[in-house]
Amino acid sequence: MSILVMKFGGTSVANVDRIARAAKRVAVEVAKGHDVIVIVSAMAGETNKLVGWVQETAPLYDAREYDAVTSSGENVTAGLMALRLQEMDIPARSWQGWQVPVMTTSAHGSARIEAIPTENILRKFGEGMRVAVVAGFQGISPEGRITTLGRGGSDTTAVAFAAAFDAVRCDIYTDVDGVYTTDPRICDKARKLDRIAFEEMLELASLGAKVLQTRSVELAMRYKVKLRVLSSFEEQTDEAGTLVCDEEDIMESNAVAGVAYSRDEAKMTLTGVADRPGIAAAIFGPLSEAGVNVDMIVQNISEHGQTDMTFSCPNDQVLRAETALNQAQARGDIRFEELVTDQGVAKVSVVGIGMRSHAGVAAQMFKALAAEGVNIKVITTSEIKISVLIDRKYMELAVQALHDAFGLDKAA
Amino acid sequence: MSILVMKFGGTSVANVDRIARAAKRVAVEVAKGHDVIVIVSAMAGETNKLVGWVQETAPLYDAREYDAVTSSGENVTAGLMALRLQEMDIPARSWQGWQVPVMTTSAHGSARIEAIPTENILRKFGEGMRVAVVAGFQGISPEGRITTLGRGGSDTTAVAFAAAFDAVRCDIYTDVDGVYTTDPRICDKARKLDRIAFEEMLELASLGAKVLQTRSVELAMRYKVKLRVLSSFEEQTDEAGTLVCDEEDIMESNAVAGVAYSRDEAKMTLTGVADRPGIAAAIFGPLSEAGVNVDMIVQNISEHGQTDMTFSCPNDQVLRAETALNQAQARGDIRFEELVTDQGVAKVSVVGIGMRSHAGVAAQMFKALAAEGVNIKVITTSEIKISVLIDRKYMELAVQALHDAFGLDKAA
Repeated sequence: MSILVMKFGGTSVANVDRIARAAKRVAVEVAKGHDVIVIVSAMAGETNKLVGWVQETAPLYDAREYDAVTSSGENVTAGLMALRLQEMDIPARSWQGWQVPVMTTSAHGSARIEAIPTENILRKFGEGMRVAVVAGFQGISPEGRITTLGRGGSDTTAVAFAAAFDAVRCDIYTDVDGVYTTDPRICDKARKLDRIAFEEMLELASLGAKVLQTRSVELAMRYKVKLRVLSSFEEQTDEAGTLVCDEEDIMESNAVAGVAYSRDEAKMTLTGVADRPGIAAAIFGPLSEAGVNVDMIVQNISEHGQTDMTFSCPNDQVLRAETALNQAQARGDIRFEELVTDQGVAKVSVVGIGMRSHAGVAAQMFKALAAEGVNIKVITTSEIKISVLIDRKYMELAVQALHDAFGLDKAA
Repeated sequence: MSILVMKFGGTSVANVDRIARAAKRVAVEVAKGHDVIVIVSAMAGETNKLVGWVQETAPLYDAREYDAVTSSGENVTAGLMALRLQEMDIPARSWQGWQVPVMTTSAHGSARIEAIPTENILRKFGEGMRVAVVAGFQGISPEGRITTLGRGGSDTTAVAFAAAFDAVRCDIYTDVDGVYTTDPRICDKARKLDRIAFEEMLELASLGAKVLQTRSVELAMRYKVKLRVLSSFEEQTDEAGTLVCDEEDIMESNAVAGVAYSRDEAKMTLTGVADRPGIAAAIFGPLSEAGVNVDMIVQNISEHGQTDMTFSCPNDQVLRAETALNQAQARGDIRFEELVTDQGVAKVSVVGIGMRSHAGVAAQMFKALAAEGVNIKVITTSEIKISVLIDRKYMELAVQALHDAFGLDKAA
């Protein structure tokens, strides 16, 4: 018996017709001999509607009740999908999170899956059931309350089930047909990748390519789950979409796999900061407490015992960051001359495991940007990623230039 | 500690604003010192939407999946109501059926409540919680599947909780301000009753006065739950609405408490039926198997070993009834000369526990109808009810005439 996990996102189950179409995809896999675990999201728009009601009812809501309300959309889809499969004479039934049970932490709104007992579902497979339809995004806390895994959490549900049931593969059906070298909306040469390494996908996911929830990729990497992203709107073969897989399953690769961007960034600089041990902690501690997601950090060289400290954060957190820093100054915890904010920047990154073996990727990147007259404001690098902060008006140009420079329109 | 059960129907929680208004009503009772169990229905329209999706997905649906889908509307309202109460600084939390757990039979779509353990909710009350918000209409089967109690089932949930927790009263908030002597839409002299006996309410409920689910009244009668029907759209006092109570709690009563009607009835007559022992069973057995709800039955006196058999059923079951009877004739199970169907009839009934002590109610009823030239086609009686089948065109006239004849516009 081979178990396949198939996950359908909100647009893939947006209405009764789309649920019927998704059910046909499931039937194809059942006919191939798989027992299938289907993970479903809420019908597109439903979760937003529920979240809206919660916010209208209680601006400062209790996260436990938020979870009880917002998890209901997935239950509806799960029941409807099971019914549709039964109509096609495929033995199927639905499971809500608490019925499996999907055991999570008590961190309501962003709970982590701790265990998925497989006995109940395996027994049903043993009794002839061919498809278990499971409501994604939800679980149950040790206290018996309903939890949710955060937006996009159904991806994580799918990967966790694939790991728990040792599935042959986890197919994520979505409204795009795979992972691209960059966003096709701003670069018409963007090319769909047949394969991408977990590490690359992680960097791309956290950089804003919203194909998969970051946590689902981490989980897939840890448990070596073969993860495939493909479109629910096209006829599919076993080779369709993009396979997110272990580095060693990728034979040959470009130095760079993709170019990612993040539009709404802000750059903040503290000038005239006293350069002493512990100063970074004194600055970034209050920012963290204020809920500011600091991304890139650069410290200039010190002169006369003073330095400049630059960091980036999402644009809509600037006010919070300014308040936190001014309060820290008022308390005497830090001292700086000036706080300079630039809200007109964007982040552009190149990502690729090939960087480990290909030298000169950074130089090639900076050269391509310079050739287009794009000024770089901040640079950070990791083993498989180079990111730069640039003026937002050059963002599209930079993405296109880098896509060309690394030959991403051609396969490796 | 006194526990009060309050139930809010679909129109009373139709949107976020109405939920807020209902929460204010709950706050009033909390301020009086009650611990409150709130039972909520789905927001008006939600359950119909879900049922529509199920029927579209699978015309011959699996009742277990139907229940899993349709129960989700109540979960949303329960969470929102708890959130709203918390906003008003009232300690509250929501419970879904499986969390209590509301233990029911496995009769999906029309399950019966078997037990409601009180420990969890009582412990929370002991810890300072003031309101337990429970999703109505749903429970959990011995197999761990979600069940529903049938349309209007939240009334039954409310009464069952009131019985289990020995509540001081069970208040049913709805879109009408109580139980009337008859339908105010067809008789402008209709008067709201302050009190009505369980038995009377049962007859009225089963006759089509859709204020309360019949089963909830039966349950209230069995467990002596004081049941009050009142409007969620008006300011309310402790004496508002109509109290449905034990006969002995009603001091003085009219011979007749109310006039009920049922518009869409059909009268069917089998002529020339061989009058032999077991003939009634031979006729009504097949009708029952075909799902025809036979209401009134009249057998004429026998002549020459033959008789006529007349019965009534809902208009939309006529085709089913005709098919079943013709098939029984074809099989040789029964014999009749002709099947005469009259789809233009209505049923009008007078109901009152006072009939037990007041003589001549039937005569008074027939006289009042005769005075208006209304011909009676079929009559049936019970201890506290007299029903007649008449031409549908006289229905409103008959209701008004009977309301006048029994002086229902004046209190006893």
